[in-house]
Amino acid sequence: MDAKELWETPKKYLDKQIELDGWIRNHRKQKNFGFINLNDGTCFKQTQIVYDDSLSKFEEIQKLKVGSAVHVLGRLAKSEGGKQDYEVKAIDVVLLGDADEDYPIQPKRHTLEFLREQAYLRPRTNTYFAIFKIRSVAAMAIHAYFQKNGYVYVNTPLITTADCEGSDQMFKITTLDFNNLPKNKDGSVDMSKDLFGKKAFITGSGQLHGEAFALAFQKIYTFGPTFRTENSNTKTHANEFWMIEPEIAFCDINKLMDIEEDMLKSVVREVLEKCSEELEFLDKNVQNGLIQKLQQLVDSKFVRISHHEAIDILKNSGEKWEFEPNYDSDIAKEHEKYLTSYFNGPVFIKDWPKDIKAYYMKLNDDGKTVAAVDLEVPGAGELMGGSQRETDYQKILSRCKELGVDTSTIDWYLNLRRFGSVEHSGFGMGFERLIIYLTGVENIRDVIPFPRTPNNCLY
Amino acid sequence: MDAKELWETPKKYLDKQIELDGWIRNHRKQKNFGFINLNDGTCFKQTQIVYDDSLSKFEEIQKLKVGSAVHVLGRLAKSEGGKQDYEVKAIDVVLLGDADEDYPIQPKRHTLEFLREQAYLRPRTNTYFAIFKIRSVAAMAIHAYFQKNGYVYVNTPLITTADCEGSDQMFKITTLDFNNLPKNKDGSVDMSKDLFGKKAFITGSGQLHGEAFALAFQKIYTFGPTFRTENSNTKTHANEFWMIEPEIAFCDINKLMDIEEDMLKSVVREVLEKCSEELEFLDKNVQNGLIQKLQQLVDSKFVRISHHEAIDILKNSGEKWEFEPNYDSDIAKEHEKYLTSYFNGPVFIKDWPKDIKAYYMKLNDDGKTVAAVDLEVPGAGELMGGSQRETDYQKILSRCKELGVDTSTIDWYLNLRRFGSVEHSGFGMGFERLIIYLTGVENIRDVIPFPRTPNNCLY
Repeated sequence: MDAKELWETPKKYLDKQIELDGWIRNHRKQKNFGFINLNDGTCFKQTQIVYDDSLSKFEEIQKLKVGSAVHVLGRLAKSEGGKQDYEVKAIDVVLLGDADEDYPIQPKRHTLEFLREQAYLRPRTNTYFAIFKIRSVAAMAIHAYFQKNGYVYVNTPLITTADCEGSDQMFKITTLDFNNLPKNKDGSVDMSKDLFGKKAFITGSGQLHGEAFALAFQKIYTFGPTFRTENSNTKTHANEFWMIEPEIAFCDINKLMDIEEDMLKSVVREVLEKCSEELEFLDKNVQNGLIQKLQQLVDSKFVRISHHEAIDILKNSGEKWEFEPNYDSDIAKEHEKYLTSYFNGPVFIKDWPKDIKAYYMKLNDDGKTVAAVDLEVPGAGELMGGSQRETDYQKILSRCKELGVDTSTIDWYLNLRRFGSVEHSGFGMGFERLIIYLTGVENIRDVIPFPRTPNNCLY
Repeated sequence: MDAKELWETPKKYLDKQIELDGWIRNHRKQKNFGFINLNDGTCFKQTQIVYDDSLSKFEEIQKLKVGSAVHVLGRLAKSEGGKQDYEVKAIDVVLLGDADEDYPIQPKRHTLEFLREQAYLRPRTNTYFAIFKIRSVAAMAIHAYFQKNGYVYVNTPLITTADCEGSDQMFKITTLDFNNLPKNKDGSVDMSKDLFGKKAFITGSGQLHGEAFALAFQKIYTFGPTFRTENSNTKTHANEFWMIEPEIAFCDINKLMDIEEDMLKSVVREVLEKCSEELEFLDKNVQNGLIQKLQQLVDSKFVRISHHEAIDILKNSGEKWEFEPNYDSDIAKEHEKYLTSYFNGPVFIKDWPKDIKAYYMKLNDDGKTVAAVDLEVPGAGELMGGSQRETDYQKILSRCKELGVDTSTIDWYLNLRRFGSVEHSGFGMGFERLIIYLTGVENIRDVIPFPRTPNNCLY
């Protein structure tokens, strides 16, 4: 049976014979008896197996090592002491797969840094088991939210030949041999010989393609991996990460904020409900107050202010800033932190200066700002970035010109403004940033199963 | 309101005033009245809008073009004729976004080839609307099945430096400048200068990483994009496609087949239930008998035979083969077709000759075959491929040697056999192949929003 089933209704199995397969997380031995902590992967909780020297295989069982896999036959009993209510009194324990002496995950406190080096084994520890379980539950909650609300899931392409996002931020992909590149007459590389007949990249966003589908299905979302080439070794950067990009037709920036708020609360609520044991563990061991923080978010009403108002608050704060707040500029991490703590909760900041934002964002009537909105949350900073899109063909063309965007590869995207163009909006949410927020861990390397960062592509 | 809501309970809205936003799919004009077919993206069904010259804007409305977006104010009424039961009598129609004269999707039968060239607009046609809706519903059904059954969703990495799958089938990725590559003293390219400090690829499978997580969580699945460099222009090949790769610990090949069968039936059942209108359309227009085919699959018991038995059947068939069936070889498309038609349903073929299968598959006791299993389905050929994995460290090492697999980059994977190794199995399902099966379309280019094939990376 599964441990999950057992621990959901232990009373049902009291005094009954049960069988469990799992891995030994801990093994404490006394002269005449011993305790094995067994985890079978189906739930966070471990099952305590008690055995004593009345078993004919007592000596054999005492030799079982942490990390090995065993089959346990036993009887569920009320625990005679210790923290747990029930334990399994062993009738037989059979070794399925031994753990060699050099098994690195021992029942002691390993640092996250050490465990990162053991990425393929670290989900066998409590911390990473909790993190990756929450990651899975959150992913499902996101799918469930959008599907329930009538969104169509669209798999936008990762391979692209359009470099409108700035190709220096994208990985080039090729099937050519680096040591034997085909050349043009002028000595440059002849990319027409590559698989797609031209330069190709892997992309950092599915937004443009998402917009095309939103103008057919009204409500769509993407959820997939994205890539950035940033050579940056911070706690929040990885070269491969996952993103969710919903796009909604007949939707302005106000309705967009409603959706963002509703979606985030729905996901947090689901994780609170389905991962209570994992969250309790992380609350105790990783971020004190984690559960309260999440509960507060669900119960709060997100504040909505303009970029101009945000700068006012920062200027009037009396704080000493490393970066002086400025009506024409982006806001810094220290500002984000101040604002979420000032409002004691999530804050939408909207209507940003057009010069620091992208060409596809709708120009506001003031001619100076665009209908962009960022969501700042306590502890994780910017969690979502979105905007109402420019739907006027001439206006988006002139914004492209202003910002020096090469339109030759996005003519189809611009054409969407010529064929039944309607008010539409969308946002992007970095999935890892959400997991950082949900788990309280600080480093993006700890929320990705096998993280990829500069000079670091192991496993 | 949404058309979906309207058409779920039209009686509720009869004789009531309603408002709809959507796109004009068709516009038929008579002297004193006209019909507009409106689709708002929320459901397959179109809403018929009737207007006549009692409206002050009659002439303006008559000029509205196919492809443009409109806001309709009207009253739901019993239809006075035609195919539909209800229609909306217009009170006002407001143009939201015009369609320029060159709008390519007109209300006539376009070929799929023509529509492929309009990938960004084709979801506005019935056929592609149905296909991509089914794709979304099927994706959700897959997530729902695995989550309901306790699987953890794992995002395995796409960027890899291990080329154990054969790097000639993987795209190389780089941040280096092709026209200015750093060189070693011997003139070869110095890959240590690249972002990850070595050669890197985007991968075609998450299986190895999935196994590591299955040995912590017992049951896991992946669902994400994969890449192949095949320079192949067939109906079933694309260079970017999505895959589902579940991996289950404490699971042998027989239990694996149970899971594959149960999962597939669950997904088909869900699509039958949630996409009945889309399937009816495709049944009429793309593949006659589609719904019956799907219903039959749900009701059937999948046949299970060995590769040896399959070859026996083929040899005894009396058929003339292009490729002669052989006990030591793979089976050809013509054989797959014969077998699914012979059994009139899906067929599992297991226990394949070891020499034509991968190093990680469990060697059977006969020493000649491995515990691999392919699922063949009528009309789509091989839909899933899986195996019980080799769990013995020495045996997998010697299989690597036999097949010439470089083990230097997969030492961690092999180590899984030294640290609590248990019986485990997994399979891969090509998502597009499933969608081809579910929709009855024949070309993979028609089930991917923006397909990537050799010399073809548009949009």
